Amino acid sequence: MSMPPLDPKLDLVLERVVDVSPRLVWRAWTEPEHLMKWFCPRPWATVECRIDLRPGGEFYTKMRSPEGVDMDGGAGCYLEVVPERRLVWTSALGPGYRPLAAQPEEFLFTAYILIEPQGSGAKYTAIAMHSDEAGAKRHEEMGFQHGWGTALDQLVDYMKTV
Amino acid sequence: MSMPPLDPKLDLVLERVVDVSPRLVWRAWTEPEHLMKWFCPRPWATVECRIDLRPGGEFYTKMRSPEGVDMDGGAGCYLEVVPERRLVWTSALGPGYRPLAAQPEEFLFTAYILIEPQGSGAKYTAIAMHSDEAGAKRHEEMGFQHGWGTALDQLVDYMKTV
Repeated sequence: MSMPPLDPKLDLVLERVVDVSPRLVWRAWTEPEHLMKWFCPRPWATVECRIDLRPGGEFYTKMRSPEGVDMDGGAGCYLEVVPERRLVWTSALGPGYRPLAAQPEEFLFTAYILIEPQGSGAKYTAIAMHSDEAGAKRHEEMGFQHGWGTALDQLVDYMKTV
Repeated sequence: MSMPPLDPKLDLVLERVVDVSPRLVWRAWTEPEHLMKWFCPRPWATVECRIDLRPGGEFYTKMRSPEGVDMDGGAGCYLEVVPERRLVWTSALGPGYRPLAAQPEEFLFTAYILIEPQGSGAKYTAIAMHSDEAGAKRHEEMGFQHGWGTALDQLVDYMKTV
């Protein structure tokens, strides 16, 4: 499994071993009805999700705050789709790889979800790559480790019930 | 050959039939020593080129003006590589799909080069996709049709000598 070229100043990494299989982790990430159950740390919720699972295809989510305010997760675009092993997408492009204009105050990132079998579970690595230190810092301060970690806990708990 | 989802307000298209084979068009686009011979409309020259021909790999060019001033073509990233048929890359990402911060006054684009056999030659379609109308307009005013058309003429003339 080739790792992307990481830069400790620009990239955030979450690495964990989970006790669900690579197949279940993959389904959790790629089937909207499953993804919506765990993708946002509660009490936030994912209220809309579109997945066109192929390079160039759309990855879209909409989240809802506990107060009921919707937040567009934005359009994203899948870049690599290797079932049960590797899912790469970016917020810098929309469907068909169309560049997206960065909004003020926003940071763009490319996410890698890397999955490897480990015992009866999986080694799970989530990477967020940014264009500059400001973006990485902003993502970190928004709670990358805690947020992505909590979402992963939710993923594991939920997929055990599927 | 699937076409990307085009938007006439955001995308520029150059379509031509050329009398060199798909194989030669492909080599012209993917081998640095060939690309440097035709990529910039003369009297500009391409003085540096790096090609890492795989999704996520780098596409880099540096150009030189007739007055000897170097202009960074910028880092780009390949997205799809289908030999002799389809080459897609973007200026919105760098190697490993890392998002690139857009410079002020700059526009980002994703390029599709689509190649189909036609008689002993090839049908050639070049598409530049932009995030907004301003970017598309700017690219058009910079001379997309003339520039990419002239470069294609140079490609054809040069590849007949290879």
